[in-house]
Amino acid sequence: MKKWLNPALLIFTFLLSALGHFANWNFTLQFILSSIAVIFVAGFLGKATESVAHYAGQRLGGFLNATFGNAAELIIAILLIKEGLYDMVKASITGSIIGNLLLVLGLSLFAGGLKFKIQKYNVTLAGLNGSLMTLAIIALFIPAVFLNTHSITEGETKTLSLIVAGILIVAYIAWLGFSMITHKNYLADVSDDHDQDALPHEHGPTWTKKRSILYLVVATVMVAFVSEWLVGVLEPISHEYGLSELFIGAFLVAIIGNAAEHSAAIMLAMKNKIGAAVEIAVGSSLQIALFVAPVLVFISFFLGDTMDLVFTTLELVAIGVAVFIARSITQDGASNWYEGLLLLAVYVILGVSFFLV
Amino acid sequence: MKKWLNPALLIFTFLLSALGHFANWNFTLQFILSSIAVIFVAGFLGKATESVAHYAGQRLGGFLNATFGNAAELIIAILLIKEGLYDMVKASITGSIIGNLLLVLGLSLFAGGLKFKIQKYNVTLAGLNGSLMTLAIIALFIPAVFLNTHSITEGETKTLSLIVAGILIVAYIAWLGFSMITHKNYLADVSDDHDQDALPHEHGPTWTKKRSILYLVVATVMVAFVSEWLVGVLEPISHEYGLSELFIGAFLVAIIGNAAEHSAAIMLAMKNKIGAAVEIAVGSSLQIALFVAPVLVFISFFLGDTMDLVFTTLELVAIGVAVFIARSITQDGASNWYEGLLLLAVYVILGVSFFLV
Amino acid sequence: MKKWLNPALLIFTFLLSALGHFANWNFTLQFILSSIAVIFVAGFLGKATESVAHYAGQRLGGFLNATFGNAAELIIAILLIKEGLYDMVKASITGSIIGNLLLVLGLSLFAGGLKFKIQKYNVTLAGLNGSLMTLAIIALFIPAVFLNTHSITEGETKTLSLIVAGILIVAYIAWLGFSMITHKNYLADVSDDHDQDALPHEHGPTWTKKRSILYLVVATVMVAFVSEWLVGVLEPISHEYGLSELFIGAFLVAIIGNAAEHSAAIMLAMKNKIGAAVEIAVGSSLQIALFVAPVLVFISFFLGDTMDLVFTTLELVAIGVAVFIARSITQDGASNWYEGLLLLAVYVILGVSFFLV
Repeated sequence: MKKWLNPALLIFTFLLSALGHFANWNFTLQFILSSIAVIFVAGFLGKATESVAHYAGQRLGGFLNATFGNAAELIIAILLIKEGLYDMVKASITGSIIGNLLLVLGLSLFAGGLKFKIQKYNVTLAGLNGSLMTLAIIALFIPAVFLNTHSITEGETKTLSLIVAGILIVAYIAWLGFSMITHKNYLADVSDDHDQDALPHEHGPTWTKKRSILYLVVATVMVAFVSEWLVGVLEPISHEYGLSELFIGAFLVAIIGNAAEHSAAIMLAMKNKIGAAVEIAVGSSLQIALFVAPVLVFISFFLGDTMDLVFTTLELVAIGVAVFIARSITQDGASNWYEGLLLLAVYVILGVSFFLV
Repeated sequence: MKKWLNPALLIFTFLLSALGHFANWNFTLQFILSSIAVIFVAGFLGKATESVAHYAGQRLGGFLNATFGNAAELIIAILLIKEGLYDMVKASITGSIIGNLLLVLGLSLFAGGLKFKIQKYNVTLAGLNGSLMTLAIIALFIPAVFLNTHSITEGETKTLSLIVAGILIVAYIAWLGFSMITHKNYLADVSDDHDQDALPHEHGPTWTKKRSILYLVVATVMVAFVSEWLVGVLEPISHEYGLSELFIGAFLVAIIGNAAEHSAAIMLAMKNKIGAAVEIAVGSSLQIALFVAPVLVFISFFLGDTMDLVFTTLELVAIGVAVFIARSITQDGASNWYEGLLLLAVYVILGVSFFLV
Repeated sequence: MKKWLNPALLIFTFLLSALGHFANWNFTLQFILSSIAVIFVAGFLGKATESVAHYAGQRLGGFLNATFGNAAELIIAILLIKEGLYDMVKASITGSIIGNLLLVLGLSLFAGGLKFKIQKYNVTLAGLNGSLMTLAIIALFIPAVFLNTHSITEGETKTLSLIVAGILIVAYIAWLGFSMITHKNYLADVSDDHDQDALPHEHGPTWTKKRSILYLVVATVMVAFVSEWLVGVLEPISHEYGLSELFIGAFLVAIIGNAAEHSAAIMLAMKNKIGAAVEIAVGSSLQIALFVAPVLVFISFFLGDTMDLVFTTLELVAIGVAVFIARSITQDGASNWYEGLLLLAVYVILGVSFFLV
C-alpha cells in the first residue's frame, strides 16, 4: 500500500490532471491523466476512511468502512446522473459487479494459485454472501422482467424501481445490523483467516485522529474533482474511439473506479490470505448491488428524474453469469490458478460481447 | 394446535360463512368469512388426515399424509377449474410454491432466528428435495419455453402438458416408493431432528379409529363447501378492488389455502425444530409442483377442457427465483434471522410486481 | 468390454453396413446397419486409443485419451459440416451434452442404485467439473443472447463465435495443463475411487505397441467410412419419418455416437465404481463443450463457411437444464436410484419437446 500513500505522487497526478482539464488538452490525454488521478485519489480516500473508522470504534467504524468503501464509484455515478447519462450509470453498476466477481476475484485466485498450489478459506461466509448476492440479482432483474413481459407505463417502471430500491436498502441496513450487532462474533469466528494482519490497515493508523478526519474531507473533495474531470471527457472519448456507453461504463469506468480495491485483493491473495481477498471482491460487489445501486435511484429521484432499474438483457446476463460462476467457484472453500483463469475467461467473453455492441 | 381443534370455533366460523353466503351479504364480508372458515376447516381436515394416517399403519399412513396434505388447495383449484378460471388456478399453484418457499420458510427462519442465534439441521434431505424441486421447475418451464419459441398449435401445447404431467406423477409415485419403501430408514436417519416430538401429531391421536374416519369425511365435505363459497366471491372481489386474477390466485388464495401448514411450520421453528419446519415448507411446495399441478391437468382433461401448463413469464420467474434462493439458503444446514429476512424481502418484491400487473 | 473386441463381429457389422451402402438398400435398413457399425467401430477406436495411450506414457497418453475420446462424434460432425447441415451439428453438440449428463448419468445412477442402496464418491472433482461446465454454458449462451438482443450482422455473429471458440480452446488446453501437469497428483488424490482397476484398460493392453498404432489408424479410417454412410442417410430418414434436424441431431446421432462410453459408464456404476461413471459422463460432456464444439467452429472456418455458435432457445434451455440438475444431483457425493430416475425423467421431457418441434 506504500505507493498509494506517497503524497508527492498523489498531488502530482492530481495537479497534472487539473492542468490537463483546465488547459483543455487533447481528450485522450485528459482521459488518461484523470483516470490515473482517480486511482490515486480513491486509494487515498480509502486509506483516510480506514483511519477515521479506526478512531470511530468498532461499530461506527465498520459502518463507515462499509458505506464509504465505494465512495469513488458513488461520486462518479452521481456526476453521470447529473449529466443524464443513465445508461452509463447502469452500465457502471454492471461493470463494478462483474469486475469484482470476475476480474478481481479471477486475478486474485490466479495470482495466488500460481504461488500456492491450493489455497483454502472458510466457506460459511461465502454461503451467506452468496444468498445476499442472489437477493441482489433478483431485485435487479425484476424490473426488467416486468417491463419486457407486460404493457406498463414509464411511471410504473419508476415506481417499481423505487420500491425495489427501498427493499434493497432495508436489506442492506439489516445486513449491517446482522454482521455488526447480532452476529458479529459469529461472523468473526467463521472468517478465521481474515485476521487483522491480513488487512490493509495492518499496523494501526498512520495518522492522528484530527488529521484523519481532515484527510477524509480533503480526499472526498479531491475525488469529486477528478471524477468530474474524468466524466467530462467520457462522451468525447466515446465518439472518438467509437465505443458504446455500455462498454465505457461497464469496463473503463468500472475498472478505474475499483482499481484501489483490485490491487489490495490481489496482494492479499499473493500473501496466501485468499479468504480476505474473496471477501473484498464479493463484499464490494454486494455493496454495489445492495447499497450503491438503490442509493443512486433515490438520488436521481431527489434530483427530479428517477432512474429506473431496468438493465439491458446483456447486462442482466452478464450479472447473472458472474454471480453464478463466482458462487460455483467459491462454494468449495479451496482455490487454484485454474479457477482464476476460468473467471478471467468469462470476463474476456463478456468484454468482447460488450465491445461488439 | 389447540385452536384448530376447538369444535365450537370451527362450527361457528363454518356456520357464519354459510350464513353470509346464503343471505348474500356484502362480497367483502363474505370473502373474509369464507377465508377464515377455510383456514379453520383446513386445519380440521389436516388433523383428521393425520389421525386416520396413524391408524392406517406407517406405509399407508405416510401415503395418506403425503397425498391429502394439500387437499384444501386441491379442492379450491378444482372448483376454479369448473369455473374456467385457468389463469387463477395456475396463479394459485405459483403462489403456493413461492408462498411455501419464501413466506413460510422466511417467517420460520426469521421467527426461529430471533429466538435462537444459529439453528442447525441435517442437510442431506435438503439436497434431495432440492433436486426434486429442480425437476419440478424444469417440468413447469418446458411447455412455456416451447410455446414461446416455436409456432405450435393449442392442441400440441395441451398434449405436451399432459405428457409432462404424466412424467411428474410417475416421478411423484417413485418418490413415495423411494421415501417410504426402499430408503425409508435412510431418510429417517438423515432427518434426525425430525423426531416424533416435533410433529403436530405429537401425543398420539385424540380420536378413536371410527371417529377419525368419520371426521375425515365430514372435514372433506366442509372444505368443499367453504371452498365453493370462497371461490364464488373471488371474481366480484377482483372487480371491486381492481385486483388481477394473477394477484388473487398467487397471493390471496395461496395464503388462505396454506394457512394451517404455515402456522405449524412457524411454531416448530420457534421450538428450535427448524429441520421439521424446513421440511414442511419445502415438502409442501414439492407436493404442489409434483402432485397437485399434474393432477389438476388430468382433472381438467377429464372435465373436457385440458388446462395447459403454460405459465406466464412473471410466474416462471417467481417460481425460479423462489427455488433458487430457497436452495441457496437451505444448502448450508444452518439458519439465522437474516436469511429469513432475505426470503421475505424477495416475497415482498414479487408481491409488489404481481400487484402492479 | 469383451463384445467390442470381438474382431469377427466388428468386421461383420462393418462389411454389412458397407454392403447396404453400396447396394443402396432401403434407407431405414442402411440407417440401422450403419448405426450398429458406428457403435462397434467407435468401441474399437476407443480401445485402440487407450492402448496407444498406454505406450505413450502418462502425460502424452492422458492427452491422447482426452482429445481422441470423442473422435467418433468429431468425425460425424465434420461430415455434417461438409454437407452444410449446421443445425444438425449444433443439435448433435446439444444432444451429446444432455445425453451424457441426463441419459448416461441417469442410467448409471439408476442401475447402480438398484444394486447398491447408497453409492458414495469424492466430491472435489465434481466441484471443479461443475465450474468448468458453467464456463462452457456461458460461452455457448453468449452468442445467442447477443444475437437475440442486438441488431447485429451475420459476420459479427461469426466473429464473436470464433473469439468464443478461441477462448474455450485456451481454457481446454489450460485444463490439460492443470490436470496433467501442475495439479496431477492433487486430482489423483481426490478421485480416490477412480483406481486403475475401475477403468476399462484394467489389465494392461492386449496388443503390442506396433499393433496398437496400426489398429488406431485402421479404426480411424473405419470410423470415417461408417460415419459417412450414416450421415448419408440422415436426410432421407428425416423426410421419411417426419423428424426434424434438431431431433435427429440431438437424439439419434448423439446416442449412437456416444454408445461406447455409455455402456462403459453403466457397467462401472453396476460394479459400484460410481465415481468413475460420473467422471466419464461429466468429463465427456465437458470435452464436447470445451473442445469438440470450438474445434468444429474452426474447422468450418477453414472449410470456408464459419459455423456460428448460435443455438436455438430450446437447445440452450436443454443444455442449461441438464447442467443445472446434474450439478444439483452430483454435488452431494452420494447417489441412489431415485436421483437416476429424476435425470431420466428430465431427459424424457426434453426428448418429447424436441420430438414435437
